[in-house]
Amino acid sequence: MPLYTITTRVNSLSGESKAALAAALTDFHSRFADVPTKWVHIVFHEYAADSGFSNGLRSPTVALTLLIRSGRSPEYKRQLLTKIWELLQAATSAPDEEIVISLLEGDASNAMEMGKILPDVAR
Amino acid sequence: MPLYTITTRVNSLSGESKAALAAALTDFHSRFADVPTKWVHIVFHEYAADSGFSNGLRSPTVALTLLIRSGRSPEYKRQLLTKIWELLQAATSAPDEEIVISLLEGDASNAMEMGKILPDVAR
Amino acid sequence: MPLYTITTRVNSLSGESKAALAAALTDFHSRFADVPTKWVHIVFHEYAADSGFSNGLRSPTVALTLLIRSGRSPEYKRQLLTKIWELLQAATSAPDEEIVISLLEGDASNAMEMGKILPDVAR
Repeated sequence: MPLYTITTRVNSLSGESKAALAAALTDFHSRFADVPTKWVHIVFHEYAADSGFSNGLRSPTVALTLLIRSGRSPEYKRQLLTKIWELLQAATSAPDEEIVISLLEGDASNAMEMGKILPDVAR
Repeated sequence: MPLYTITTRVNSLSGESKAALAAALTDFHSRFADVPTKWVHIVFHEYAADSGFSNGLRSPTVALTLLIRSGRSPEYKRQLLTKIWELLQAATSAPDEEIVISLLEGDASNAMEMGKILPDVAR
Repeated sequence: MPLYTITTRVNSLSGESKAALAAALTDFHSRFADVPTKWVHIVFHEYAADSGFSNGLRSPTVALTLLIRSGRSPEYKRQLLTKIWELLQAATSAPDEEIVISLLEGDASNAMEMGKILPDVAR
């Protein structure tokens, strides 16, 4: 963790756009959360052109889900979400109505990385 | 939020079936949760024919994951799950053994939509 | 539940490898958690060759997310994660830096399977 899953309509982001967004998110997240960049994992999933819906209608919906360790403050999460929104919207040019971003929190003891159970968030 | 992710074997739902199911879920969810339809986002993910398993055996498993804001009552969630099950099974014709539906709850402050952090569930 | 979602770069696991890993996870999980094998659902998602990133760089990142009912002890989860890591790494041959595994816990009342809301974890 963190694990970013970014879901977009097929062909809406080029390979270069994905690499640039992944680099920007990794750099930001590492500095903001004070964790090594090697902890940051990002996967882009693409769905078929007929498979995204917002407001009940076919749409190039952009969904970003981020798994983090629980224990962060509301203000931390607010700033994190706001910055991710900014980076994601810049990369996709999607309007506000077609973007949804969610944090999912798990106990550190619920994740394993580098062959080890994760430590708790430092406080 | 809500964000529905519906995962099916490739080619098991037509584009028309996806659109009809998305419209039905959006309409139901909006009325049941008393939220605007434009808050409802739905993405269909398809996996390769060799990539789904139930009971240890290859299977056209249907998985629906729904992210909602926390704070709803058990009875609310029971009714929500029951109706979603009904709509999903009608659309996919999958037997009970091949369907799994999960709600994931996050604090409202963990999600951002329309450029804004979400408000808490009204009580 | 449990619902395993295993995300790999396209073509990194053969159909046979997926079936063998799914069988091993199902057998292990059923015995370890003392639940019927038919409760275990597994889906493999594949992402395009340009779509995975670890440490800010393109990478054949392997992500496994597991949805379980809440209520298990930390030691239970530690053993579960450790065994899953071992099976996943054996199947993918991925180095430690490219694997991330997360448990997501939901109330039993948040999931529906076999047409029924799930019972709580037995204690």
